[in-house]
Amino acid sequence: MREECGVVGILSTEGEDVSSHIYYALFSLQHRGQESAGIATFDGSRIRVHKDMGLVSEVFNGDKLKLLRGDRGIGHVRYSTTGPSTPENSQPLTISFRGGTIAVAHNGNIVNSTKLRRALEEDGHIFLSESDTEVIAHLLAKELLRKDIVDATRELMKRLIGAYSLTILINDTLVAIRDPNGFKPLCIGKVNGTHVVASESVAIDVLGGKLIRDVKPGELLIIEEEVESYQIVRSPSTSQCVFEFIYFARPDSIIDGKLVYDVRLRIGERLYEEYGIEGDLVCPVPDSGVTSAIGYSLASGIPFLEGLIKNRYVGRTFIMPHQRLRDAGVRLKLNVVRRNVEGKRIILVDDSIVRGTTSRRIVQMLRDAGAKEVHLMVGSPPIIAPCYFGIDMPTREELIAAHKSVEGIKTVIGADSVNYLSLEGLIEAVGIPERRLCLACLTSRYPVEVPGEICVRRQVRLTHF
Amino acid sequence: MREECGVVGILSTEGEDVSSHIYYALFSLQHRGQESAGIATFDGSRIRVHKDMGLVSEVFNGDKLKLLRGDRGIGHVRYSTTGPSTPENSQPLTISFRGGTIAVAHNGNIVNSTKLRRALEEDGHIFLSESDTEVIAHLLAKELLRKDIVDATRELMKRLIGAYSLTILINDTLVAIRDPNGFKPLCIGKVNGTHVVASESVAIDVLGGKLIRDVKPGELLIIEEEVESYQIVRSPSTSQCVFEFIYFARPDSIIDGKLVYDVRLRIGERLYEEYGIEGDLVCPVPDSGVTSAIGYSLASGIPFLEGLIKNRYVGRTFIMPHQRLRDAGVRLKLNVVRRNVEGKRIILVDDSIVRGTTSRRIVQMLRDAGAKEVHLMVGSPPIIAPCYFGIDMPTREELIAAHKSVEGIKTVIGADSVNYLSLEGLIEAVGIPERRLCLACLTSRYPVEVPGEICVRRQVRLTHF
Amino acid sequence: MREECGVVGILSTEGEDVSSHIYYALFSLQHRGQESAGIATFDGSRIRVHKDMGLVSEVFNGDKLKLLRGDRGIGHVRYSTTGPSTPENSQPLTISFRGGTIAVAHNGNIVNSTKLRRALEEDGHIFLSESDTEVIAHLLAKELLRKDIVDATRELMKRLIGAYSLTILINDTLVAIRDPNGFKPLCIGKVNGTHVVASESVAIDVLGGKLIRDVKPGELLIIEEEVESYQIVRSPSTSQCVFEFIYFARPDSIIDGKLVYDVRLRIGERLYEEYGIEGDLVCPVPDSGVTSAIGYSLASGIPFLEGLIKNRYVGRTFIMPHQRLRDAGVRLKLNVVRRNVEGKRIILVDDSIVRGTTSRRIVQMLRDAGAKEVHLMVGSPPIIAPCYFGIDMPTREELIAAHKSVEGIKTVIGADSVNYLSLEGLIEAVGIPERRLCLACLTSRYPVEVPGEICVRRQVRLTHF
Amino acid sequence: MREECGVVGILSTEGEDVSSHIYYALFSLQHRGQESAGIATFDGSRIRVHKDMGLVSEVFNGDKLKLLRGDRGIGHVRYSTTGPSTPENSQPLTISFRGGTIAVAHNGNIVNSTKLRRALEEDGHIFLSESDTEVIAHLLAKELLRKDIVDATRELMKRLIGAYSLTILINDTLVAIRDPNGFKPLCIGKVNGTHVVASESVAIDVLGGKLIRDVKPGELLIIEEEVESYQIVRSPSTSQCVFEFIYFARPDSIIDGKLVYDVRLRIGERLYEEYGIEGDLVCPVPDSGVTSAIGYSLASGIPFLEGLIKNRYVGRTFIMPHQRLRDAGVRLKLNVVRRNVEGKRIILVDDSIVRGTTSRRIVQMLRDAGAKEVHLMVGSPPIIAPCYFGIDMPTREELIAAHKSVEGIKTVIGADSVNYLSLEGLIEAVGIPERRLCLACLTSRYPVEVPGEICVRRQVRLTHF
Repeated sequence: MREECGVVGILSTEGEDVSSHIYYALFSLQHRGQESAGIATFDGSRIRVHKDMGLVSEVFNGDKLKLLRGDRGIGHVRYSTTGPSTPENSQPLTISFRGGTIAVAHNGNIVNSTKLRRALEEDGHIFLSESDTEVIAHLLAKELLRKDIVDATRELMKRLIGAYSLTILINDTLVAIRDPNGFKPLCIGKVNGTHVVASESVAIDVLGGKLIRDVKPGELLIIEEEVESYQIVRSPSTSQCVFEFIYFARPDSIIDGKLVYDVRLRIGERLYEEYGIEGDLVCPVPDSGVTSAIGYSLASGIPFLEGLIKNRYVGRTFIMPHQRLRDAGVRLKLNVVRRNVEGKRIILVDDSIVRGTTSRRIVQMLRDAGAKEVHLMVGSPPIIAPCYFGIDMPTREELIAAHKSVEGIKTVIGADSVNYLSLEGLIEAVGIPERRLCLACLTSRYPVEVPGEICVRRQVRLTHF
Repeated sequence: MREECGVVGILSTEGEDVSSHIYYALFSLQHRGQESAGIATFDGSRIRVHKDMGLVSEVFNGDKLKLLRGDRGIGHVRYSTTGPSTPENSQPLTISFRGGTIAVAHNGNIVNSTKLRRALEEDGHIFLSESDTEVIAHLLAKELLRKDIVDATRELMKRLIGAYSLTILINDTLVAIRDPNGFKPLCIGKVNGTHVVASESVAIDVLGGKLIRDVKPGELLIIEEEVESYQIVRSPSTSQCVFEFIYFARPDSIIDGKLVYDVRLRIGERLYEEYGIEGDLVCPVPDSGVTSAIGYSLASGIPFLEGLIKNRYVGRTFIMPHQRLRDAGVRLKLNVVRRNVEGKRIILVDDSIVRGTTSRRIVQMLRDAGAKEVHLMVGSPPIIAPCYFGIDMPTREELIAAHKSVEGIKTVIGADSVNYLSLEGLIEAVGIPERRLCLACLTSRYPVEVPGEICVRRQVRLTHF
Repeated sequence: MREECGVVGILSTEGEDVSSHIYYALFSLQHRGQESAGIATFDGSRIRVHKDMGLVSEVFNGDKLKLLRGDRGIGHVRYSTTGPSTPENSQPLTISFRGGTIAVAHNGNIVNSTKLRRALEEDGHIFLSESDTEVIAHLLAKELLRKDIVDATRELMKRLIGAYSLTILINDTLVAIRDPNGFKPLCIGKVNGTHVVASESVAIDVLGGKLIRDVKPGELLIIEEEVESYQIVRSPSTSQCVFEFIYFARPDSIIDGKLVYDVRLRIGERLYEEYGIEGDLVCPVPDSGVTSAIGYSLASGIPFLEGLIKNRYVGRTFIMPHQRLRDAGVRLKLNVVRRNVEGKRIILVDDSIVRGTTSRRIVQMLRDAGAKEVHLMVGSPPIIAPCYFGIDMPTREELIAAHKSVEGIKTVIGADSVNYLSLEGLIEAVGIPERRLCLACLTSRYPVEVPGEICVRRQVRLTHF
Repeated sequence: MREECGVVGILSTEGEDVSSHIYYALFSLQHRGQESAGIATFDGSRIRVHKDMGLVSEVFNGDKLKLLRGDRGIGHVRYSTTGPSTPENSQPLTISFRGGTIAVAHNGNIVNSTKLRRALEEDGHIFLSESDTEVIAHLLAKELLRKDIVDATRELMKRLIGAYSLTILINDTLVAIRDPNGFKPLCIGKVNGTHVVASESVAIDVLGGKLIRDVKPGELLIIEEEVESYQIVRSPSTSQCVFEFIYFARPDSIIDGKLVYDVRLRIGERLYEEYGIEGDLVCPVPDSGVTSAIGYSLASGIPFLEGLIKNRYVGRTFIMPHQRLRDAGVRLKLNVVRRNVEGKRIILVDDSIVRGTTSRRIVQMLRDAGAKEVHLMVGSPPIIAPCYFGIDMPTREELIAAHKSVEGIKTVIGADSVNYLSLEGLIEAVGIPERRLCLACLTSRYPVEVPGEICVRRQVRLTHF
């Protein structure tokens, strides 16, 4: 599973160039996308863009940042899921039209993008890429010909179904938009005289700034000297992605008022409360299981101890050269600290189980090292359904929990027990009411209409102001 | 501080090509050197080499490994400290001479290299590089003209002063040598029919093999179908690098019989025993302080909790573009989890203090986030003297503890207290007798003669068998 | 002066993959653009594209060509003149719209592109780039919604003013279009069962094929099993670029029925006929002056001899490091064969004079080498006006002949005489009637309306069939 | 056939940095080696080197040249023939020894290198590469321990058999050495206060300097404020490579007093004198046949006309993707100007025939284009034996003339006649007495002892002064 994107929007009220700020902010969001990176700034007369394949530190250097003049701009990191990953698909996406130029950075996925695209094509629109972001840009541009930014955004939100946290330059105006469901996080902060909008609060932290608040679902921010807020859509229920808390976001981020670290700690605590399984040590699957393992340890009093060490140099380009050594795969990433696990009853804590293959290999490694018992504590309920809102996830067929009972999964993985956090436990750990969460991958009930899937909130009428 | 090198030597008794094994092993030793990587194999008739600047995963690919035919070979990863880092300085170093061809992979530093080199030059020897490894190769080659491998190694050991864990191909013969002081680690293991010698046992683990034992200080191994051992030098005292345990080695490695993880845990426990400082949480400086922090937590009962999160994408090429943002430096690598530290008394655990600048910034970040108290627990005694045995360390002038009292350091760093582990505590935590450890950087008393430094064991006569 | 682009379109009637053919063809057109290269093929169900910055041999390799499946496709090489040269601006440009997908390769420049673009924007069109090619694609797509290819092309031609030799994939249909003025060359040939359309006939030669004929100005070709021709616009006068003959095209190309080599020979002959200047040798400025120099030699009987040798390794990345050596500039590219010129009266033949700086330096080099007289014979009349039709040329201010008399130019250049070919001589050498040539850069009278310039054929009404 | 290397040595008597001069000089010698490039300078205290794989313009940039401080230095371009081409084999080669540091740039090949190397190895010498240049460096260093530069060079020359034009830095002393046979060219010139030694005089020209004279076979130059000359070996006969005149050297170079351009012109004239073949045009195989074709035209009165055009972008990386198109090979490089050759009797002039395959394809192309007759005039006698002195040439088996009569070659190539220049004709054209030329590849009689070959001058005793 991978997050697909991170976005940033920055404006200096003191006329300072912001490309370096955006660069730092993107760097702190690198975990949200490692495939391409880009920055667009408005330099006083026109929008400048630089984007390319690669990590933020590879795509940019001092010279390139210097060329990106301007006191306002947006940035994007991307991990693409569909189609060939090419420089052309990297963002920000820029378009020019009668009303000027628009640059868009998008995190999320538009569910009805094909339909919207077809309608726009019927209307004569022409597209240069396959991306749903180009559809957003076209819709927005079209509306901006007749309406001001607020009304155009209202029209845009009427049309789009799905996830979209956006930072946009409309000529010289920086705006931020979060979809009415609030699928993907977006927050705003301030660093001295500089406004910062970003996918996660760590992007504000890295600049030495202060998180002010989350952008609300359905909200439009127009960021000038002051930040104007427009609650375009007000909805009784939202659907914030629960997996941001479980896995995607950095633990030091605060999302929708909740510190991710806290949530993960509570997940660990809840796992102990729900199952009460005892053991000799609580051992995380690094890095994603660490915080919940600490929580389990705190709740249970069982010592937290690392039984698995991660190789910090596992990167994008690693090859598996030797047929007979291919099962070295997991060992290259993880190594067992034998003496920590030998003869021990292990409480193994991981954030989730997707296909089950990695879990199976880890359990095997622990057993090979002499673990007496391995109890796998999973920081989420079973993942039984795919995500359509911007997470790169295997198909339903590949999701082990879509086809197997917990007992069956236990057999496959070879653990002494496999213990999923309950849905209630998860919701409580997150601390956000169920009606404000997207739990689709755990319930197979979707918060918006997705062709071929059950929509749980079909009846909900969004109110457009 | 950086480790300078890692070495590997592998021989398959079943005639299998070993380049992939070496590649995996080097990958697991990547933390010992990220600047260049290389592999040399004996293909049945000659030695083949590929080496270049870059990470293991960048230097090699499937095609290159396939060309490195042969059932025996050596490998090297390197971080260079002196002079320009160039492809020519990468290892294995190969030389040809009357007796054939030699390929050498070296971890360590020869203290009397300049003197030896001058003597060899007097003798007519000609060098192509500045490296002490070329000196080793020349000495060895010279002796091999008149002696067999065992006697030649004996002569070599008589001449070399300093640190050298070596894996060497002498034509078709794979040998491993560890200096009589045993400065740098070296161990041997087996994976089915394959012998593996490596700087750390993780290189054996990654291949799914079993650690057999450490190569002994002063020992020569000739690795064939069977491994022949020759204790070339027997010495009443050795000087194994204590910082391998404190910082350099991977926690999952077993060095000289001691699991590094255990040592680091005990360091944390000892720190609590020695100072008994209480607080609201034990917070590690990631990643190197994590294990000792767990130890402190276990000993004290104070909860282990992460107050600092590390950005996993901090790499080699990052630039600091904006003058005013340059102090973002530490924030790019580390971010505070504010709610974990706000209003709290923090037990902050780090492995060591070198210059003190990073510690000062981290303490400041914690204070800015509202920490009530910050007590810095340091997993080693003060570093007061430079290393001459293969560690890249600042000069004596730059070492904060070489010039300041603990009280002075506390003032500079701004912590409520700075608490260094005692030398006795460290020795006890490591579990190896003091006379077998190199503690020079902590005591300024060197185990071998180094010009301008005090030598504590000058009188010790190595016995050459 | 640089040509901006070359285009190719290939269809195999035997179902063979054509990406390799396109690759070879582009390679033979590399002189028309060295900045980026691209290929698009229709693979039976969709259009595939690969394009990037670099030479044809750098952008493509065997793997990439293999991925470009399909029995029909187009290719493009590009030298960009305006704006930053980026991967996104490389061609073929692909768009998708209600009618499917279009890929366009364009050689030329649309004079009224800004106006058309504005009109399209008024109409709601949205653009992703600044290029006139995107305007062409939009116009074409728009018309294709209501009309078939022939009628859509007719509408397109009604709107576009300027130069456009196009190869286009409209879904699975390969078409070729040449503007009614015929500014840029375009020809069609056949290689066994494969149709080839290309900017120059050398692209057909390289495939071992046969040139059939030029695409006529105003003609549309729909290339299927058979090639259908539609004379969309019939015009009494055309304006084929005369500089293709003088300088841009390869000498072995046949353009509009004329072998470029022949034209250049005749230019040399005419220069002798017009001026009758005698000397000891005829010396070309390599490479562009060679053929005309041979012509001069043949006509005059004066021996052809190389007095200047060109360094074949002058490339894109050369740097001029040393202030004092910077005047080595011309010497790096050209060296005098002293003994061939010493004490001699040199007939120096070049294709044209743009700024005059290179000519001045060459004359100086010849004089320094002891040339007694240097008579510069120029294969074109004075260039006095800029090109708006796809050639990268200095501004009017920089053109030496726009401001100086021939006498003045002679003084600047330092030659004993400077002898421009007469306009009549040039026209006769080309062998195409004046009313069919674009001579704008030589006469400052433009064949189509260009804002701020004199249009000589304003009255001409194009007839659209 | 490819030349293997070019060398440069430059010293500024005015204390100016010379790295830029060397860079320019190497650039003008790029035709002598395109695989790697390097520069070494003496900066006042030590020798600095930068070298890497690639063209001169790729290996160096402004920053790198700036780092290469010093008023004296050497440079090298290389095309390697044996073994893998690696950065380590690039030159200048530097060694350090008791006497200091030596940097060597070598053009040529040492015939007895293996024997010398073995002797040195017997003597305890150790080598890091396979190159004969390292052998030269060792021998020189060894002698310098006991002797001054002049006497050491004398000893060196006594030992080396083969070709060696050398530029060397011995600590701060720049020297140039040409072997007693004078196989490879070497000349000296002056640019203001700067001494320049180089493989060809074009390297002096590019700097705006004046060729003074050739370095004599057997001469040592010590280049300081003044240039000291030592005729170390005086030999009644030398053996300058005749193929430098026929093919390798740039036409604008003056080698051993002969302008290469003149020689090639005379070769063309001689070919007409020897065979008197008439035709409709004289057509060169570009680029190497051009000058001789002009000579043939001047002698015969038959017009010089290009029937073949070369693609200027044929480079190192070109791939041949399509099986069926592979015979496009020659067409990619050369294209026929059909109208120039159709129905014509072609006098086709090439410099030499090696394997015959390219000639065969060119003749076929001309015939396909309708040539009535093709008479191939070859600017050298048949190549019947390999070169051991620094030219990359096919084995004897692959040389068509080693196995076939002229009649047989004619049949293979398919020309109406194949006409080789006579040996006498060649010698006369070059203008150097036979006893001063190496004609081994044309006669199979070698000027020095080569194992397995006939040595024609075995009896000649070199006189060492």
